[in-house]
Order: sequence, then structure tokens, then C-alpha cells
Amino acid sequence: MITDTSTPSGGYSRPDIDVRALTQVLDGEYAEIRELVRTNLVKHASVLEEAEELDIEAFRERVRELAVALAATGQTGMGFPKEYGGGGDIGASIAAFETLAFGDLSLLVKVGVQFGLFGGAILHLGTERHHRAYLPDLITGKLLGCFAMTETGHGSNVQALGTVATYDADSQEFVITTQGEGARKDYIGNAARHAELAVVFAQLEVGGRAEGVHAFVVPVRVDGAPAPGVRIEDAGRKMGLNGVDNGRIWFDGVRVPREALLNRFADVTPEGVYESPIENPGRRFFTMLGTLVQGRVSVGGGAINAAKVALAIAVKYAVRRRQFDAAPDTEEQLLLDYGMHQRRLLPLVARTYALHFAQDVVRTQLHEVFSTETGDEQERRELESRAAGTKALGTWHATRTIQECREACGGAGYLAVNRFAALKADSDVFTTFEGDNHVLLQLVAKGLLTNYAHEFEDMDQLGMVRFVTGQAVETVIEKTSVHKLLERVRDLLPGGDEWDQEAGLLDSEYQLAMVRFREEHMLAGLARRLKRGMDQEREPGAVFSHVQDHVIAVARVHVERLVLEAFVDRLRTLPDDDNKVALGLLCDLFALSTIEADRAWFMEHGRLTVQRSKAISREINDLCRKVRPLAVDLVDAWGIPPEMLRSPDLVG
Amino acid sequence: MITDTSTPSGGYSRPDIDVRALTQVLDGEYAEIRELVRTNLVKHASVLEEAEELDIEAFRERVRELAVALAATGQTGMGFPKEYGGGGDIGASIAAFETLAFGDLSLLVKVGVQFGLFGGAILHLGTERHHRAYLPDLITGKLLGCFAMTETGHGSNVQALGTVATYDADSQEFVITTQGEGARKDYIGNAARHAELAVVFAQLEVGGRAEGVHAFVVPVRVDGAPAPGVRIEDAGRKMGLNGVDNGRIWFDGVRVPREALLNRFADVTPEGVYESPIENPGRRFFTMLGTLVQGRVSVGGGAINAAKVALAIAVKYAVRRRQFDAAPDTEEQLLLDYGMHQRRLLPLVARTYALHFAQDVVRTQLHEVFSTETGDEQERRELESRAAGTKALGTWHATRTIQECREACGGAGYLAVNRFAALKADSDVFTTFEGDNHVLLQLVAKGLLTNYAHEFEDMDQLGMVRFVTGQAVETVIEKTSVHKLLERVRDLLPGGDEWDQEAGLLDSEYQLAMVRFREEHMLAGLARRLKRGMDQEREPGAVFSHVQDHVIAVARVHVERLVLEAFVDRLRTLPDDDNKVALGLLCDLFALSTIEADRAWFMEHGRLTVQRSKAISREINDLCRKVRPLAVDLVDAWGIPPEMLRSPDLVG
Repeated sequence: MITDTSTPSGGYSRPDIDVRALTQVLDGEYAEIRELVRTNLVKHASVLEEAEELDIEAFRERVRELAVALAATGQTGMGFPKEYGGGGDIGASIAAFETLAFGDLSLLVKVGVQFGLFGGAILHLGTERHHRAYLPDLITGKLLGCFAMTETGHGSNVQALGTVATYDADSQEFVITTQGEGARKDYIGNAARHAELAVVFAQLEVGGRAEGVHAFVVPVRVDGAPAPGVRIEDAGRKMGLNGVDNGRIWFDGVRVPREALLNRFADVTPEGVYESPIENPGRRFFTMLGTLVQGRVSVGGGAINAAKVALAIAVKYAVRRRQFDAAPDTEEQLLLDYGMHQRRLLPLVARTYALHFAQDVVRTQLHEVFSTETGDEQERRELESRAAGTKALGTWHATRTIQECREACGGAGYLAVNRFAALKADSDVFTTFEGDNHVLLQLVAKGLLTNYAHEFEDMDQLGMVRFVTGQAVETVIEKTSVHKLLERVRDLLPGGDEWDQEAGLLDSEYQLAMVRFREEHMLAGLARRLKRGMDQEREPGAVFSHVQDHVIAVARVHVERLVLEAFVDRLRTLPDDDNKVALGLLCDLFALSTIEADRAWFMEHGRLTVQRSKAISREINDLCRKVRPLAVDLVDAWGIPPEMLRSPDLVG
Repeated sequence: MITDTSTPSGGYSRPDIDVRALTQVLDGEYAEIRELVRTNLVKHASVLEEAEELDIEAFRERVRELAVALAATGQTGMGFPKEYGGGGDIGASIAAFETLAFGDLSLLVKVGVQFGLFGGAILHLGTERHHRAYLPDLITGKLLGCFAMTETGHGSNVQALGTVATYDADSQEFVITTQGEGARKDYIGNAARHAELAVVFAQLEVGGRAEGVHAFVVPVRVDGAPAPGVRIEDAGRKMGLNGVDNGRIWFDGVRVPREALLNRFADVTPEGVYESPIENPGRRFFTMLGTLVQGRVSVGGGAINAAKVALAIAVKYAVRRRQFDAAPDTEEQLLLDYGMHQRRLLPLVARTYALHFAQDVVRTQLHEVFSTETGDEQERRELESRAAGTKALGTWHATRTIQECREACGGAGYLAVNRFAALKADSDVFTTFEGDNHVLLQLVAKGLLTNYAHEFEDMDQLGMVRFVTGQAVETVIEKTSVHKLLERVRDLLPGGDEWDQEAGLLDSEYQLAMVRFREEHMLAGLARRLKRGMDQEREPGAVFSHVQDHVIAVARVHVERLVLEAFVDRLRTLPDDDNKVALGLLCDLFALSTIEADRAWFMEHGRLTVQRSKAISREINDLCRKVRPLAVDLVDAWGIPPEMLRSPDLVG
């Protein structure tokens, strides 16, 4: 062994990780449901092979069958009220979904479509009549449904969708019609084969008046055949997730009773009078959409756990595989003893831990907001923003991590018998569905610029531009949620060029101050650019296009700040033991890697000297060497059932 | 349209691209063979659908059939001597391969295995007796073979492989045996079904003496069944490239006649005397491996063209797809009019052009070295280094570009009917096969540190460490090929902090000076770190591990310098017309994007002020806006047959 354990110096002694205890920290309050899911994963482990052995139709049936089998264990119904057969615990439902992501991702997405999207829409947009009618059978999987929102012509711009639902007061029915080819419902999971019902989002028209997007329960299949007026097309083979039957749906004057409107936030009287407790149409729309936030929380958490599977395989392979002579007459060196290999994998392990704890926070907030009907607007908007941001960073992290791990496992990683082929193909679309990541980050930035003020909820990006530029820059900054950070940062970090020379790189207050400063500065800069742009060019579209990369960057650094805070906050709650020491190394590695990746920005903005920037890179290499001997314990602590690694060539 | 064409200022007028003429520039001297390949691609366009419709066995047969059909047109035999039925033009054979990469990549790799690896080994490692016996049937595809080098236990470390070929002087035969499970041949294309012959790399033992790795022609299949003593296993389903029948091979005392040794560089007399014109065993080994450089040149060029397909689809989609309102009562804005979307795609277009011209250089060098038997050692080593580096950068570029383009096409990009699913899955392994990219970049760095001195050819990385550290740092720098750059850079760029304030960002001399300085500085720094590490730690393995990321970084910046030089050099040869103006924009965009991506390093090393760094980012946004209206012409000029885009949902 030529691993130079000698390098770390200065009172450091290698922590001895208690893997079991670390798993308990990670599983948190949802250990029980996670264990149930792990048991179910192992029981149905054959699905990993079936995913490649069965043809598409047979695999779709198998996945449906498994989703129903999981439902019988209670695993998939945790988010529904107990009175209808659910578990009455939204947080647990998310934890169950996250854990399921260790296994086949078609099954994960099938479960997400049925119980999350379809079930969630019935639950959150419907009222008691819908709950009574559908929830009991939906929870057992006896009644399958789909969530028909996305259209070909409007992927991310839901407000502009083209399906129309016209109220016919004579028959007391809604007439649902696909207006134009761009308005066909597209990529709809569960649609091609299994759904009997669809929750259809359509522009409601009552008495000739457009009332905006609303959701309706529409039967799309009767005895296995499309319902009258409904046309369904199979979306066909996809890059991955072929156990999910995605399809397209057209509606040709399909009539549903007045009661089919999911009427929690708006209703139409038999006589044809539109009523809603929320007056502002934009606010009403975003309130409806907001109830669907759990989908984003679920996908983000699932992606983070899919990344764990890839990292567990790559790390275990790297402590088994030798390559090239270390020295004459010795064994070849283990891959993970190479500095480059450490640099490739270990910061990703650290970021995965960081995102895990960030996901804990967003899951807890979701649980709190949805478990009480009293949650205020501001809280909901902050939750939506955090969910969008965590989803974006988590899914990009999964794509990047799975790719890096595949490459780090060489040719063996390319064989389908090892898990990367499925992981990569199945997880690819996570960056797109439940909201395209770039669109989501724009949402996050909008929230920051307007401080989630509900009067601006209905603003699109151009409304946001006009709002921001309609007032003094100082007012914008004053209004932003970041403003309060500014003072904190200033207290911590005295000004001048030498401001950061005193703090230690491994001081989490220093690390936090850096990412807080970055966020505050970038947001204020964005507000100034928007204002200047409008002053000069006066065309909001062009102004927005001009600064769009800045908008995305602001959102990204905001979410990274939240992620680091989540990690630091969690660390502070832990007892002083070796596990905490190990997590502390990971937290430092994550924080410094984040700063290093953006070190050009910090130098450009006078917050990092050249010397200190180089010191950060050296410190990261040092941290990698410290984490190296802990790596296997750290990935074992994720508690991935060994059957899920399914890489006989790689981990034995 | 709110594209602000107004922004570019200062005497700039938008060039009017002559697409046909630009295609001629890109096709260069190989326009004819490229046209033949394009015709063949269109003729067999159905293979793109067949790749997903046929089961694995049927698709493998189809791909074999197509490879033979292509052979009949002369497309695949360009690299073989005319006397055996080839085209006698190595450059043309690479150009044909590159162009074939617009189509299905299983077919590409099947062609590469048969005509490049197997055929290339017979041609370059064999002598007339092998040429006469095999080339005529090999060129027509009547005789199929495989290239059995890689082993399970030694992916990239060929020198250490475990298959043994012992000379039996009594029978005048070699006895070939797989010694240990790690020595099985693995991932061998053409092995699972089609190969009759294998070129097998094994440790030669003559009279009890180990003579190192040599290649032998071994029949592996007779009348469709494995030959006696040969065991073959199907590698099974892969992430992609499922039209190629990869397999594993074991040899159990398989006897082949003495003449089966591919004896261009070494032979064994009937009596059992080992003879070689190359005395040094290491040098002999690398000379043999060196003849296989065309595989790397082919893969690099293929990857660059696969990236073109993805970009062509994404750019065409982005000028068709609208998303979100630009302004009230107007159409939604085209994706490519968004600043972020320009930033995502257009620098990738620029980098693709740059890599195209870099590939032209390496192809030309390959042609020159292999078309004359007189090429000197130094030239060959430089070619090998350039081929390795271009392969690494080209294949990573493909992986990154295909991913970015898929995401930029949203959910439609995920459907198999559009091309990303296949492109992504099939191209994924390009970063690994024909040499893992990280291993290749280490090879590049070794060449730089030792100035390709042939006495150091047989050094592994630790030998390199010892060599470099065995002398004064100045000597190392003196010896490096970068040294000569140093003076050039110093002439151009006077010292001091203000050194770069005078030159314009769009001055290619400035851009070149920047990337040359970076290379020289990083290489000298690496030499110093190696020496200091040895002085302090004395363990070459640990020293190397410590600086490995620096080693990889040096190689990367070296190759980027070569790529930029290739682009600038090519530009200088072009007539002053609008096409040159357009290419000039791309060259600037590539150069500045490259500097921007590493701007932290430039600031850390005093070669970029904060102001100038920010100016570069602004200039890049400006260049993106200038390239925006040219984008479709620029991707059309690649001459990808429309049938190959195969994205009905995306480009119509």
C-alpha cells in the first residue's frame, strides 16, 4: 500500500466510522419506512434483470404488477389520509419514494405517476367527493390513472396550454377538446396502456369567459379501450424508463359531468357561474400548481439516491481494481489510491451527502406545510422555490455523477449486466420532467427578486423584469430575501482586500460567508443589470435574454448556499464522535469544492486572493486523501441493498 | 423577432454564409470519399430504425450484412494497399470512417473492428505472407476477424497482459494459453458471433525466455463453432452498440504454426531463436502499439462527427421551438433567441469546428507518417501523442455535447424515435475504448516531459517520474517541446502586470499567447513538483499520485493549444470572404470560451486582470449573439444527410 496516509498532519487522526450509526443519521425519522422499502427492493430484485430481458410490453406489465404489489405493503400510500387507506404521513411518502430510487427507475417513475402525480392531483386539487370516489382504489392500485398536463406545444409553459374545457350549462357538463395538434397531451406516463382515468389540465371556459387552467377527472379508457372521443397513441420506445407506458392523448368533445372539475380552488355552479375563493387568476393558477410541489421534491430526492448507487459501485470498484505498477515488483496500484481518481469521485461523494441533507430540509418543510392547512403563503412560496432548486441541482448532480462513475469503471461499466446502462438511460430525463431545470432555476430567481411576494405570483419572466426595473435598485435589494444575509456577511467579514486572510479554510463560518456573499452580490448585480437594460433598451424580452445566464447563475448559487447551510446545520446537531468527524471532512470537501469551482468569480469580486485560491485547491487534495480510507464506509452508510448494485464485474 | 441584432457594433456586418463552399472547406481533399459515404448512409438509412426494432441477434446480423455491403463500394477498404483490393489512401480511410459516424454507431464500430483493428493489425504488424493470405478476403468482408488485446485484468496496461504464447521448437508451433481468469480476452468486438480469426496479443516465451507482448493470428471459429481449445462467451447486452457482438475469449493450449506470428518487428526462427531489428524490448513494444494509432485517430474523428449530429438537431429545434411569451400579444420567443440557450449551444458549435480542424491536422500527419516508410521516430511519437490527445478531447466533447443537446431538446429528446437515445448510448464508451481518456492524457504528458525521446519510450509513469526528477528542473524544461514556445510567448507579451492590456481580445496572437503561456507554465510547474516530491518523499508511486491531476491538466491544455493552433492556421489559408468572417467568429468564440473556462488559472498566474476576465465573458455573449443568425448555416455546412438527423419531433 502506497496510499500516503502520512500526508494529513496537524493533530488529525483518522475517524473510525460506525456505519450502522451513520445510516441511522441518514435515514433519520423515516428509518422504518425506508427499511420496508429496502425489504421490498430485495424481494423484487429480479426487476433489474427483467428490465433488459423482457420486451417493452411485458416489462410494462411487470412494472404495473410490481407497483400494485408495493401498494399492498403500504409503501406507496404513505401520503394519503388514513381514512382512505393511506399512511397519513407526507414526509414518509417522500422518504419511501427516495429509497425506492435505489432500484429500477421505471418502477420508481410508475409509482410516481400513479401515487404522486395522479393521486396527488386528486388529493390536493379535488374535494371530498373526489376523495371518496377515487382514493381507496387508487391507493391499492386497483384504479390506475395519469396526469395529463404537458402538451406538445407547451412543455414548460403550462399557463399557455391549448386543451379547452367548455361548460355546457344545459347538460351540466364540461366539453373537453384538444384544439390544434400542439395541444395534444404528450409524454403522459401511464397513458399508453394502463390509465383508466386522467386528470386533465385544460383552459376552462364558462359562459364565453376564459377562466384559466383547471383540472378535470376524465375517463380515458373503458374496459381497456380508449373512451369515446379519446384518442391515445403510444409514445413508443424511449432512451430509458421503458417500463412506463408514456403516451399522447387527444380529446374530441369529450363530455364529463360538472362534478369532474377538481374543485378545491374553484368551482362552477350548475347554472354556469364561476366561483373561486382566490380572486386573482394568476394567483389561483400558481396555488393549484403549488400543490404539486411534492412531485419535484420526490424527483430531486430520487435523483440524489440514484447518484448514490453509481457512486457506491464506482468506489467499491476502485478499491478492488488495480492498474499499472506502483513500483517494481509490487502489485499494481488500486484505482482509488490515484490522486486523479480521488478527485473524480470523492468530491461527488461529498456533494451527495450535502444534497442528502438539503433534501432532508425540503422534505421536512413539505411535510410541515402540507400537514397543516394553516401554512402561510410566504412559506409555501419558499418551499416551492427550494423544491425547484433542489430538484434542479439534484438531477444535474445525478446525470454528472452517473456519467463520471461509468467512465471510472471503464469498459465493464458499459455492459448492461452492470448497472450503469440502466441508471444512465433511466435517469437522463430527470433533468427535464417535473419542470425543466433551467425553467425551474428561473422560477427560483424570480422568487429571490420579488421576495416571493404573492402579488407577483402571476408574473411571468417579463413581468418580473418590469417589476424589478420599475423601482430603484436599492428597493429591489431591500426587498430580496438575501438582503438579511448581507448584514450577517458584513459582520463576519470586514472589508478590504485582506478581509479573508484571517479565517481558516476549514471554518464553516468562513465557507458560509463566502457563498452568502456570492449570492448577495450576484443578486444585486442582476437587479442592476435588469434596470440598466430597461433604461437603455426598453424591450423586456431582449433585456431578459441578455441577462438570462446571470438569472440562472443567481439561482444556482442561492441553492448551493441552502445546501451548504443544510449540511452545516445538520452537523451541529450531531454528537461529537468519529462519525461527526468524517461528516465534517465531507462538509469541508463540499464547501471548498463549491468555492473552487467558482474561484474565478471570487477572485473577480475581490473575495479570494491568488494565494488563498491555490491553498483551497491544495486543501481539497488533502481532504481527498483523508476521505480516501473512509470511502467504502461512507458509501455503505447509504444502506443500498447489495442486490441493487448489480454489478458482478465491478463489485463482485 | 426580438433578436437584438442591434447589439454587435463597430463596423461589423453579418456575413452571408455560402453553405456549399463551407462544406467544401470542411470536406477538404476527401470530398469524394465523403460523398460516397453520405450516399451509402442515405441508402441504408433504415438501420437507424432497425437498431431499435430488431432484437440483438437480428441486429448484429443486419450490421454485419451492412458492413459487407459498404465494403463492396470501396468505402471501408481505403486504407489497404491497392494490390490487395484496397484504396491505398490512409487519409481517405479515416475521412470515410469519420463521415460514417453521422449514421448508426454500431455499424461504425463494426467497420472499425473489422477493417481498422483487425485489418490494421494484419497490415501493420504482419508481413507479406499475412497480407497475401488474409487481406483480399478481409477487405471484402468475406473473412471476419477480431482484435484480441484487452484482458479483464488489464484494461489499459497492455504490457502486463496475461495470455502466454510459448514456442514449441519440436512442432514449430506456438501454444497459446489464457493464464488465470484475469487473462481472458474481454470486450472483444466481432468475437461473440462473427470472427473466424483473431489477432491475439500474448506474452511470447521462447526457450524459457520472456520476450514481451507479440501478436498472433489465431483461428477462433471453424464453420461457425469455436475452434478446438477456444472458449467464447457472449458479453451480452451493452448500454449501446448492440449491433456489435462483443465477447470474451479463453485459449487452452491452442496451437498455431510458427508463421502465425505477425512478424514485422520480431520473429522466431524454426529452431527457436528470437530475432528483432529493434533491440530494446520496451521500444519494440511501443513500436508495435504505435502502428495501431489509426484506431485512435478514427475514434476521435468519429466522436467529433457524432457531436455534429446532436448539435445539428438541437440548433434546428431551437429555431423552430417557441417557449414563453416574449411580450404581450406576440408569439412566444424562439429558444435560440434566449441568451442562455445561445450560451449552451453556440460555444459547443465553435468547439466542434475547432476540433474538426484539429482532426484534419492529425489525419494529415497520420497519412504522411504511414504513407512513407521513412517517417522518423520523433514524428511518430508526436503523431501518437496528438492522436491520443485529440481522441480524449474529441470523445469527451461528444459525451458532453450530446448530453447538453438532449437536455436542450426537452422531453422530445428522450424519445427513441429522435436520435439522442441512440447517440448517447452508443457514443458513451468512446471515452473508454481505444485507450481510456485519462490514461491517454498521461501518455501525452509523458511525451511532453521527455520530449518524445525514444530512449524513454518504454518508461511507465513511474519511470517517467524517476527520469524527470533525476535531473535539474531546468534541464527538463529545456528538453520539453514546450520550451521553444516560451521564447515566442515572451516576445509577444512583455512582462509585468500590464502585459496583456494592450492586445485586443479578438487578436488571435493574443489568444494563442495565452494558451501557450498556460501550457509552458503548467509543464514547468509539474516538473518542479515532481522533483520536489521525489526529494521529499522518495516514493515514485506516491509522488505520481500526488501530482496526477496536474499531469492530466498539462496534457489537456497542451491539446487545447494544438486545437486552437489548428483552427487559426486553417483560417489563415482561406480567402477573405464571408465564410472566413463566420469561421473567424467561431474561432474567437472557441478561443475565448477556452480561456474563460480556465480564467481562474490565468488570474492565479497573473495573466488576466479582473477587468479583462469580465470583458472576456461579455465578449463571449456578444459573439454568441453574432453567431446566432448564422447557426443553422453553420450546422448545415457539416453536410449531414437529413435522414441521419432522424428526429421527426424536433426538426420535422
